[in-house]
Amino acid sequence: MKIILFYLIVFSFILTAQQSHVEIAEQIKNKGLEELSAFEMLKDLTGNVGHRLSGSKNYEKAVLWGEQMLKNAGADSVWLEPVMITHWVRGEEKASLKLVNKKKIDLSICALGGSIGTPKGGICADVIEVKSFEEVKQLGDKAKGKILFYNRPFDRTNVNPFHAYGGAVNQRTSGAIEAAKVGAVAVLVRSITPALDDEPHTGMMRYVDSIPHIPAAAISTIDAELLSKELKKGNVVSINIILSCKTLPDVPSYNVIGEIRGTEKPEEIVLVGGHLDSWDKGTGAHDDGSGIVQSIEVIRLIKSVNVKPKRTIRAVLYANEENGLKGGYAYAARENNKKEKHIAAIESDAGGTSPRGFGVETDSLKFENISSYSSLLEIVDAGKIRKGGGGVDISTLEQFGTILIGLSPDPQRYFDYHHSHNDTIDKVHPRELELGAIAIAILAWAISQDGI
Amino acid sequence: MKIILFYLIVFSFILTAQQSHVEIAEQIKNKGLEELSAFEMLKDLTGNVGHRLSGSKNYEKAVLWGEQMLKNAGADSVWLEPVMITHWVRGEEKASLKLVNKKKIDLSICALGGSIGTPKGGICADVIEVKSFEEVKQLGDKAKGKILFYNRPFDRTNVNPFHAYGGAVNQRTSGAIEAAKVGAVAVLVRSITPALDDEPHTGMMRYVDSIPHIPAAAISTIDAELLSKELKKGNVVSINIILSCKTLPDVPSYNVIGEIRGTEKPEEIVLVGGHLDSWDKGTGAHDDGSGIVQSIEVIRLIKSVNVKPKRTIRAVLYANEENGLKGGYAYAARENNKKEKHIAAIESDAGGTSPRGFGVETDSLKFENISSYSSLLEIVDAGKIRKGGGGVDISTLEQFGTILIGLSPDPQRYFDYHHSHNDTIDKVHPRELELGAIAIAILAWAISQDGI
Repeated sequence: MKIILFYLIVFSFILTAQQSHVEIAEQIKNKGLEELSAFEMLKDLTGNVGHRLSGSKNYEKAVLWGEQMLKNAGADSVWLEPVMITHWVRGEEKASLKLVNKKKIDLSICALGGSIGTPKGGICADVIEVKSFEEVKQLGDKAKGKILFYNRPFDRTNVNPFHAYGGAVNQRTSGAIEAAKVGAVAVLVRSITPALDDEPHTGMMRYVDSIPHIPAAAISTIDAELLSKELKKGNVVSINIILSCKTLPDVPSYNVIGEIRGTEKPEEIVLVGGHLDSWDKGTGAHDDGSGIVQSIEVIRLIKSVNVKPKRTIRAVLYANEENGLKGGYAYAARENNKKEKHIAAIESDAGGTSPRGFGVETDSLKFENISSYSSLLEIVDAGKIRKGGGGVDISTLEQFGTILIGLSPDPQRYFDYHHSHNDTIDKVHPRELELGAIAIAILAWAISQDGI
Repeated sequence: MKIILFYLIVFSFILTAQQSHVEIAEQIKNKGLEELSAFEMLKDLTGNVGHRLSGSKNYEKAVLWGEQMLKNAGADSVWLEPVMITHWVRGEEKASLKLVNKKKIDLSICALGGSIGTPKGGICADVIEVKSFEEVKQLGDKAKGKILFYNRPFDRTNVNPFHAYGGAVNQRTSGAIEAAKVGAVAVLVRSITPALDDEPHTGMMRYVDSIPHIPAAAISTIDAELLSKELKKGNVVSINIILSCKTLPDVPSYNVIGEIRGTEKPEEIVLVGGHLDSWDKGTGAHDDGSGIVQSIEVIRLIKSVNVKPKRTIRAVLYANEENGLKGGYAYAARENNKKEKHIAAIESDAGGTSPRGFGVETDSLKFENISSYSSLLEIVDAGKIRKGGGGVDISTLEQFGTILIGLSPDPQRYFDYHHSHNDTIDKVHPRELELGAIAIAILAWAISQDGI
């Protein structure tokens, strides 16, 4: 009898908690869809700040913008946390293809983030097309003095372009290292996108100290197809690449933070975030303007429905995700000095399309914990909870046992625009963007009440 | 022991069937995503046929186009089935607003489908804004000789715009009837869309014989807001509406049909379909060009992976859905004369965005039957099976006990374009469209093998 009573109490407690979550979720949903504020903020960020590469004047404008927006959203407190961030600058970038018939064709290219520049007159060399690092190794001495052209496309048959991206992106990140090992003098990398377009898609590349550093540029997929065709026909004499990009010393800047203080366990934090920096192509509307305005909107929505969370809900607008992750590292480093516990971190950095659910990186038991909110999230049709897929910025919190959660929007269009001139506000739909913010707000609210 | 053996056999049979479904689904998925043919067909339909209103020359072109495409797709047989279809023509349409300061403002309007025209010089009258039929009734004699302006917007707080559409569309379908009851001389209806744009969105309206027929037009949401504002300020003198639309006698045309004949139970049919007609604004890319090319693509995909279904898979490109449903009625009428049994019908008429799953209209037992394919459909992230929501064309098969199934694509953008100049190919994403076709093909294949 006692046991039955116990279960009755527990059950009615859970039921009440769930009902209360549903009521608040409904209020958040109605407020969000009625006002569509995330899109208004994104118009402001992309229109009045523009792109915002780490170390640029625009990034500093974005910091002030983010601070003001978090205040406007009604955060209990808003502050900046210092961090030294990467300062890489692009400069001139061009390339041309010389054919055996003496015709010269300009190629649509751009420097990859972190690349060194070429000597002033550029690099002029023969080109060899490759699709894998295995092929690069096999080239051996043949690669000496050559430009290697990585041309492995997205696997279109992969339903999720994020997975296809994972299968192609090492050409960009490590292509210069592998090419330099066999004596190549530069690399051209097919843009890491499923779209066939004439824009080069930039993104981060790496060097290692022990291997010569060589310049690396992205080439548009249309020009990659053209180059490949001309190579197959034996028509190519050489390519000339001129890049004047360079890495300057790190500069001081900030992560931007705002929070609603928890009423019962303020030291337990539910973090929502994205990255405030973007590449210097387009205006970073999807990557990651969307995640930024959604994080601010979470604060605004929860404040505007007049509820107070038991645990602290904190929005973090991270610095320098694209080419350094120094914002993420700095935020994690501070944790060692504070008496806070980040119980969960939710990142939005997969674009502002319709939310489908969340990916969760944690052990099975805590996964079940988050999964139990699936039906609550179905209020905005975002109840698919899957294992894996937190977020790059929040990944630095893994060491503290924080549950890492990533918003999963519809993935089909994201990489069409990613890191290119095409990542602009006209690709974002106000309701889709807002539904993402609402989904995060509902999940953050539920965790802030129930704990883990 | 016998019982264990029995269960082992049954279990291994189910397992084998499921495995085989998975293998074929993978092949269909790879073929579809590699070739993206649905989008190529849609480019052809929208570019070379264009919009295709019932009774128009373009609809006849679309019939020949559909016949050819089904042959190209490899259907075992392709044929046309005669049907008398609606022939309504649009003609001239314009309206202007006269203000007390004598300013005249042109309004962005278009005739609603089925509306009668105005007298030659148009109708010039005072305007009264209403939001509901209740308000219309309460107007009583005040409405006499007036133009009623229906201005109830979409409920933005509804997560699913299809439901919000359901809450607004009676202004368009029945607004003229209710207005005529109280003596109004014409109606202007706020476009049934959540978008704030300057395009009028057309769509079907109805009359009843016993009540006077009055002209009915859609007004763009931007001009609806303008008109409402001027009315509130007391600035409006009158509106002049000129429409020369009219309904002509029905004309003979066709439903277009192609099928892959079943090897074991050819008389059992799994139908896939959409409607070949469109409104005469835009090019009907989402509505319902998408459903048409997806239905043809289902045939092409199943033929191209070299499998033969046990039951017949039939694509039906219905005539006259938008303003008559005569294709749907004709197709159902033939059923009485044939020895076929339509076990399931899958319609795609909700746009060509990313598929999320299917809506199923049937009893609980058969619903479970379809739900069991959820994990199979997760191969293309389309495993959400919900109750309700078949399709308008296939609704005429309900009387035969056919399970009615509708593809559920992401719903956020559809009504932005719906029935307007904005419903064009640039709003459709090749992969999203193809994933819808693949989802339908996988479901149709599974049902064709397992039956109901």
